[in-house]
Amino acid sequence: MSETEISTLGEFGLIENLTRDFKVKNTSTLRGVGDDCAVLDYGGKRTLVTTDLLLEGIHFDLTYTPLKHLGYKAVAVNLSDIYAMNGTPRQITVSLGISKRFTVEHINELYAGIYAACEKYGVDLVGGDTSASVTGLLISITCIGEALDDEIVYRSGARDTDLICVSGDLGAAYMGLQLLERERVAGAGQKDFQPDFAGREYLLERQLKPEPRADVITELRELGIKPTAMMDVSDGLSSELLHICKQSGVGCRVYEDRIPIDYQTAVMAEELNMNLVTAAMNGGEDYELLFTVPLTQHEKVEQMKTARLIGRITKPELGAYMVARDDTELEIRAQGWNAFN
Amino acid sequence: MSETEISTLGEFGLIENLTRDFKVKNTSTLRGVGDDCAVLDYGGKRTLVTTDLLLEGIHFDLTYTPLKHLGYKAVAVNLSDIYAMNGTPRQITVSLGISKRFTVEHINELYAGIYAACEKYGVDLVGGDTSASVTGLLISITCIGEALDDEIVYRSGARDTDLICVSGDLGAAYMGLQLLERERVAGAGQKDFQPDFAGREYLLERQLKPEPRADVITELRELGIKPTAMMDVSDGLSSELLHICKQSGVGCRVYEDRIPIDYQTAVMAEELNMNLVTAAMNGGEDYELLFTVPLTQHEKVEQMKTARLIGRITKPELGAYMVARDDTELEIRAQGWNAFN
Repeated sequence: MSETEISTLGEFGLIENLTRDFKVKNTSTLRGVGDDCAVLDYGGKRTLVTTDLLLEGIHFDLTYTPLKHLGYKAVAVNLSDIYAMNGTPRQITVSLGISKRFTVEHINELYAGIYAACEKYGVDLVGGDTSASVTGLLISITCIGEALDDEIVYRSGARDTDLICVSGDLGAAYMGLQLLERERVAGAGQKDFQPDFAGREYLLERQLKPEPRADVITELRELGIKPTAMMDVSDGLSSELLHICKQSGVGCRVYEDRIPIDYQTAVMAEELNMNLVTAAMNGGEDYELLFTVPLTQHEKVEQMKTARLIGRITKPELGAYMVARDDTELEIRAQGWNAFN
Repeated sequence: MSETEISTLGEFGLIENLTRDFKVKNTSTLRGVGDDCAVLDYGGKRTLVTTDLLLEGIHFDLTYTPLKHLGYKAVAVNLSDIYAMNGTPRQITVSLGISKRFTVEHINELYAGIYAACEKYGVDLVGGDTSASVTGLLISITCIGEALDDEIVYRSGARDTDLICVSGDLGAAYMGLQLLERERVAGAGQKDFQPDFAGREYLLERQLKPEPRADVITELRELGIKPTAMMDVSDGLSSELLHICKQSGVGCRVYEDRIPIDYQTAVMAEELNMNLVTAAMNGGEDYELLFTVPLTQHEKVEQMKTARLIGRITKPELGAYMVARDDTELEIRAQGWNAFN
């Protein structure tokens, strides 16, 4: 048996490699692997299903992640996938692997965060599996949601001349992580070290307690806008733009000066000597919604409070580029986060 | 903050403790935590959801578990939960955490087993999440199934005078594990050690490649039997009987001489000097179906090829007892497997 390191394929290559031979057998399976959620048809509304796995040492570091925030975030990232299909999350299952260093009080803290997210977004906890683990904490959450068939928005619906929009701002969660890492290193081994987060609260909040953008979905409905394609920004805007372009068979242009960036993000990038636009395009964990709308909806989109226009969809042969402030075009490459590197 | 070791609560205590405050908020949530599956109503058929977490070093040992079998089993145990509600499994999501010592070829092997189970039981793979892990392999599978509302069988429906039945035979998977453990210890450090499994193939198969009992569901339907309560035997018959008694508010009597035990299981118990009935009652991982039927269905149940009658449901005040061959009554206690011990 030959040996191939998983990092050579990356997560998406690995998944493609693994799921290639699985053919759909049930008429109730409308859409399987490849979007934010699976779409199922059990005779009434559509059922949406999504799942996320969070592992200690890979996705989170408990030296600076409070367990309550972690629980909240673990739910939030799943809800974000349901909203990204224009659906409404309804139920979650929570599976935990727990090593010996965790006490019941620790797990109660984690569940307090899970509870808070369920309360805020009206989601029911309906099951799960709980086990000891050899090392560390792991959280596997599956979320089930619903949508009417004609409400669902896939990644594959973007068409030439569509407008590209994104909610909120980008890069802050990544900068929050850089800040937490810096203070962790600075405080290592010092007993009474007090990390300095003054004036950076927004960055921490974006990293530690992201909110799924239910409000964007609400505003889209209020304005009568149905996106042609949508997904949430978890691996970074570059990576997600390429997903939409690939699955829709189109190209895109996004404008550097339209990328929404918070002031704290900019200050932190300056301080860390990092390229701000790179951080915003590739940082990841923003959990904002990236969506496309028909050109005819231009005026409606301009009214949106929760999202802004950042570019347009093109014919596929034009490729995917960011137009810089000096009008040069930079090819968009996925530099999103890869758990296997 | 006080410190409570998780082992003091056990898995069920921990879950009860954690989920107590979660109130159901959606009319689509018909049943949440506490049965084999959650039951959801999206306007057509009912949606069933179940999830299982398998962790290396806790639930499986790769020194004697082939990855393909592991993949098959990981799916099988989830399907078993859907059948245990009298439903039909339709879709699964698979999340994996993979440490550096695994190659793409290893994961392909695992998926070959997942694929085989999906093919055999007509289930679609519709999503998942794949990540690196710091140590070891972990598999989190969620299964979604369907059932008509009046088909669903909960754990809570057993009534006084109902008959108790179980499919297949019990204790073999546990004996298979003992056998694998014995040979692992015997072969430790020996390069050319050949384990001796001759005449014990059934025990190995039951441990390494359990089959969910779709055939029992089929036979029940063919005979026009609808169980009043049902669950699958994963933690051991004793533990599952107590679940049904507790959730149905009843007692039970099961007869020692009716407990189905395979010849190989008996031989192995003798060889290992273990109490055979204890192994059958508490061994776990059988993935058989335990169900109750009204006394009026006695003749139909007697015709079943896949299951047999082992006892009867009583009034709650009579408690839960096994009637031994000498007519003494032994109280049934849950000695099922506890991952936290």
